[in-house]
Amino acid sequence: MNRITGGMWADLQRLNRTAMIPHAVQWMTRLGWVANFDRAAAGERYDHRGREFADSEIYKIIEAISLEHLRSGPSELDAVADDLAGRVAAAQEPDGYLHTLFGRPWQRPRYSDFTWGHELYCAGHLLQAAVAHHRAYRSTTLLDVAVRLADHICVMFGPHGLNRVCGHAEIELALVALYRETRERRYLDQAALFVDRRGHGTLPLIEFGRAFAQDDLPVRKATVLRGHAVRALYLAAGAVDVAVETGDDELLAALKTQWQNTVDRRTYVTGGMGSHHMDEAFGEDFVLPADRSYCETCAGVASIMFSRRLLLATGESRYADQIERTLYNILATAPGDDGRSFFYANTLHQRHPGGDVPVNDDGVSIRGGAGERQPWYEVSCCAPNLARTLAGLDDYVATADNEGIRIHQYMSSTLEATIGGSPFTLDVTTDYPTTGTITVTVTQAPAVPATITLRQPEWSPSTPGRTRVWSPGDTFTVDLDLRERVTRPDHRVDAVRGCVAVQRGPDVLALESVDLPAGWALADAVLVSADPAVLRHQETGEEATVPLIPYRRWARRGPSAMRVWIPLDQTVAPPR
Amino acid sequence: MNRITGGMWADLQRLNRTAMIPHAVQWMTRLGWVANFDRAAAGERYDHRGREFADSEIYKIIEAISLEHLRSGPSELDAVADDLAGRVAAAQEPDGYLHTLFGRPWQRPRYSDFTWGHELYCAGHLLQAAVAHHRAYRSTTLLDVAVRLADHICVMFGPHGLNRVCGHAEIELALVALYRETRERRYLDQAALFVDRRGHGTLPLIEFGRAFAQDDLPVRKATVLRGHAVRALYLAAGAVDVAVETGDDELLAALKTQWQNTVDRRTYVTGGMGSHHMDEAFGEDFVLPADRSYCETCAGVASIMFSRRLLLATGESRYADQIERTLYNILATAPGDDGRSFFYANTLHQRHPGGDVPVNDDGVSIRGGAGERQPWYEVSCCAPNLARTLAGLDDYVATADNEGIRIHQYMSSTLEATIGGSPFTLDVTTDYPTTGTITVTVTQAPAVPATITLRQPEWSPSTPGRTRVWSPGDTFTVDLDLRERVTRPDHRVDAVRGCVAVQRGPDVLALESVDLPAGWALADAVLVSADPAVLRHQETGEEATVPLIPYRRWARRGPSAMRVWIPLDQTVAPPR
Repeated sequence: MNRITGGMWADLQRLNRTAMIPHAVQWMTRLGWVANFDRAAAGERYDHRGREFADSEIYKIIEAISLEHLRSGPSELDAVADDLAGRVAAAQEPDGYLHTLFGRPWQRPRYSDFTWGHELYCAGHLLQAAVAHHRAYRSTTLLDVAVRLADHICVMFGPHGLNRVCGHAEIELALVALYRETRERRYLDQAALFVDRRGHGTLPLIEFGRAFAQDDLPVRKATVLRGHAVRALYLAAGAVDVAVETGDDELLAALKTQWQNTVDRRTYVTGGMGSHHMDEAFGEDFVLPADRSYCETCAGVASIMFSRRLLLATGESRYADQIERTLYNILATAPGDDGRSFFYANTLHQRHPGGDVPVNDDGVSIRGGAGERQPWYEVSCCAPNLARTLAGLDDYVATADNEGIRIHQYMSSTLEATIGGSPFTLDVTTDYPTTGTITVTVTQAPAVPATITLRQPEWSPSTPGRTRVWSPGDTFTVDLDLRERVTRPDHRVDAVRGCVAVQRGPDVLALESVDLPAGWALADAVLVSADPAVLRHQETGEEATVPLIPYRRWARRGPSAMRVWIPLDQTVAPPR
Repeated sequence: MNRITGGMWADLQRLNRTAMIPHAVQWMTRLGWVANFDRAAAGERYDHRGREFADSEIYKIIEAISLEHLRSGPSELDAVADDLAGRVAAAQEPDGYLHTLFGRPWQRPRYSDFTWGHELYCAGHLLQAAVAHHRAYRSTTLLDVAVRLADHICVMFGPHGLNRVCGHAEIELALVALYRETRERRYLDQAALFVDRRGHGTLPLIEFGRAFAQDDLPVRKATVLRGHAVRALYLAAGAVDVAVETGDDELLAALKTQWQNTVDRRTYVTGGMGSHHMDEAFGEDFVLPADRSYCETCAGVASIMFSRRLLLATGESRYADQIERTLYNILATAPGDDGRSFFYANTLHQRHPGGDVPVNDDGVSIRGGAGERQPWYEVSCCAPNLARTLAGLDDYVATADNEGIRIHQYMSSTLEATIGGSPFTLDVTTDYPTTGTITVTVTQAPAVPATITLRQPEWSPSTPGRTRVWSPGDTFTVDLDLRERVTRPDHRVDAVRGCVAVQRGPDVLALESVDLPAGWALADAVLVSADPAVLRHQETGEEATVPLIPYRRWARRGPSAMRVWIPLDQTVAPPR
């Protein structure tokens, strides 16, 4: 198993274990989301707490704890997972159905609201949690629940069942995960059926249009992601799983096209996806305003889910590049240094210091804001989604095949493969992205030739693969070019015309108002030179050298205004 | 009384009478919004049709028909107003309360949802309709209803009543209108109380924050308009009414400041207000993206309500300038040439031809779109709001005082004043904005000196006032400078940096894709010269002379892409 052993991502994984996961469990408990299961199990009438998808947050955190156990071994979190799994299991209905908001006599009927009910969405997260829980603890407590729930779903929504899909994709990839764990083919078939069933207008028309839930076009007909970003990305991830497991090359090709067009035309330089606040949705091509860019944290999580699946399916480095961009600029940006606060949205332009997120009587932020990291949100998927992603991050570092090891992410790590029946293990040390120096040392080697390849980032010179018979102690070093580079936007992006972004390695850099000379407003600064960054005050003409910081580090020195796209001095004369 | 006698606004008024008003009445009837009143009057249980504010649309159309009667005399519309007024009156509760969605045993209780219920908002529109109806027909059918309703409101929400405000302002200006009609001081006092009561957090916190309904700051403390644009503008208009009637100079000064800051920092070049789709709200200062600019038609109506009140209060031409900008670029843009379709939103950049507004089974558009004018919307305030504004537009042309006549809008018209007890009447003829020539002829004159002033538009040379003893037949001509002028955006507006807009007189010009050479995409054209407009293709370097059209004329030759802010060729080198 690959392990991250040091550096900023190991630090974030530690923060996840010691703060983020306990913080999320605390809030879910305090707000009564966990108690929904106890009260459902007790069979008494109760008022459900939280939103339609509250169950799924408990599932995500069980998944996070399970992955963390796999990664770092036993801890006091294991008892939490055990407790939660038991309480979830107790709430399952005799026929396998499981959701705390629907179906009891005083509640809305089961499957009465496919648009917003999130019943199959929650079921999907239960399945994912159960698979992780089973792998971590070899306990079948939750896997048995998942199998009964999945069987119920296969009956209800199978070829002779309801011709329906959930408004929020997730069940698709989860059924494939359960298939991979159990090898029960019917789960894969059901996932494939859900993928093919979407896009035929079976969901009610809502004000955001059919594209909101990707019900406007069949998955294999679409050429770009549309609608609600998290829904679109979860669906795409699940569809890749289906394509790979069923050998559906047509479907895989469609998803590769969608990925490329989405990254080229509907993705921010940070890797952020989703331009609209209103419907949390992708904008049209090149509608990528810096002001109020939504770039939901969970869309970042979902984006790397999609990219990772295409990386595994194709081996192409562009997918690993995009994962890196999103890891460094969305996932590392969202959590506060204390692990107890989070950005819901990740804007590229904050005009005034501080946030304006309304907080309710429970201390919960009732809207996804961007100016300040908040402890908890009414829609609080970001914390448990970050938690499960960080806990599972070791899997992103490298992959092994019969020829050797392919390193995708530059992190200090130990990596392993089996070549010709013998272990092939590597020790990678780096302080990337502080410097670009990566040292690879062979720790165990087979007697036959083996290959070590390092992803070549799009912004750095080639790092060719090395194939030979290795011996323990063999070592080599790669130096990536981490000089600042200036990026101009596509001319079709209205919002940042006449601006540039500065990048350095995987980091997008940001200009933060706390770094400006006294008396300067962020809106008055234009860029004269990028390395070092020299700014000119548009009114006074004064110039100053100002540090640019990695975007992920913004808003950590108190409330601040910030921009990623920095205007150039406009010397164009108006037309005659 | 002033009368518009010819030109595009007279044409629109005719279209209003013959198409827009009948169209609105048809839809309100077909959708059951009118029948809500009959069923409430019958005392039977019924399912209410339409949204919380459906009652108000009937009131607005009664107001429109009444104003149209005042303007153009008897027509078959009078019977419609009479019928509607009777049906509305029959639905009033014995204690004066009137709303078809609340308070009956099977409905939600009265005043149980101040955020979204629109009860006082609807009441306000009833009051406005009643005042217009009374003036037009000298009938007290509706005025009696209004007085009973207003009396009920004064009891319920007076100094010893509920400490509450409506989530949507409107009752404030309506109570002042009723005060002006009846001279009952308690209506003015209640309006003043509502104005002062807002901004103290009595409304529940919602996800859009307290500013959404202007409940974040007392009106007299605010320096700029915030939140939902129509709500903010209605409130500001009502607050000016209160300030003028009570001599509250502090309040008036605050509103003048808010107007100026809003126009300088939060208003599009078209006069459009409201940047956000999500909460239909003003953005922060200089957040004015061209893509998806909301610029709701009703915010245009509300903006000229606010500006007109400040014009009357101060006589300053900047307010008439802003009214003109909004009339020509929002109000004249929204209705289709057939008077039976409307823009809900008025974007400044449409990237692809055609709209994507979902339409429900009733043929109603369930979201306010921008790419195509639609017959009717679920939230269909734009049609009746345009109707009542056009019917009352004669009042906007000029004002009279003891010295003479001040001409604010350049339209062919007959204007009148009384100077020293004698009539002073003018005949204005112009084909503005086709040309800038305006001819003023005196038709009746007093024996004493009288003044004729013409507003000097901010973009044209001075047109000084003329004071003398006039004789019938005296005439003079003014020529406004209607040459195209190029406007650069404020450097703090991210979204249109490196672009210019071209204006001509009151018209903002637009580049529409149907005018481009074959094979050109709108996104590839940059501006080389403004008069005539020469564009260069960014990829091929090809140049072409292309007509720019008045923004109000766009999307009238079939679906089209369009932009107001046109990029300049970017010759700025990236920084070192």
